[in-house]
Amino acid sequence: MTRNQLASFYQGYIDCLNRQAWDQLGEFVHPQVTHNAKPVGLAGYRGMLERDFREIPDLVFHIQLLIADPPNIASRLDFNVTPRGEFFGLPINGRKVKFAENVFYECVDGKISRVWSVIDTAAIAQQLGGD
Amino acid sequence: MTRNQLASFYQGYIDCLNRQAWDQLGEFVHPQVTHNAKPVGLAGYRGMLERDFREIPDLVFHIQLLIADPPNIASRLDFNVTPRGEFFGLPINGRKVKFAENVFYECVDGKISRVWSVIDTAAIAQQLGGD
Repeated sequence: MTRNQLASFYQGYIDCLNRQAWDQLGEFVHPQVTHNAKPVGLAGYRGMLERDFREIPDLVFHIQLLIADPPNIASRLDFNVTPRGEFFGLPINGRKVKFAENVFYECVDGKISRVWSVIDTAAIAQQLGGD
Repeated sequence: MTRNQLASFYQGYIDCLNRQAWDQLGEFVHPQVTHNAKPVGLAGYRGMLERDFREIPDLVFHIQLLIADPPNIASRLDFNVTPRGEFFGLPINGRKVKFAENVFYECVDGKISRVWSVIDTAAIAQQLGGD
């Protein structure tokens, strides 16, 4: 894929997540996908995302910055959401929080195969502490 | 800058940090640099880095994954270091910890102008909890 094709592919992936179109997830995610070096596979990856949407009913993925350099992608996602209960061990309980995720992807055979994600949980803790 | 020039420029920047060659930092970092949306400027940015080296005497920046898409760069840095005291509010006190930083840069006029960094503090907390 060229740089622009890879960027379009990634936007399609994010759109798939936001539509919760789980039956289409396999068009974007490799069967042997790893997440932070843990082999989760497509079913495990889907399970993680489904859980995220259960715990955060108003979850929307929004790309702030997209950097594509085939076969790799980096994306800064920003969230402005209302988790139900605990989130990363922090007691959110229905408050609105803003935070970012800086995430890297490596594609193999045209699909997301390795994901390295870091979520800014320190920013969330700071927002709770400021209440 | 082309993709390859930008990647070389970034490797030069990381080398500058590892040599603590603070007098050369202005060759890589814009005078009006921002860090996580906070305007710190070159002097403030240098101050942050100098403090990092004081608090972590064995600090080395190592690029695990570099994604260059002019004028943007994304880098996953991995650290295997021994902070002296507290680090992100966590009591490290000379233990060795491994963690990653996923960081994005935007260049303006050929220099790093905006930095969005997320450090995996959750991984550090987990290593302390596991002792």
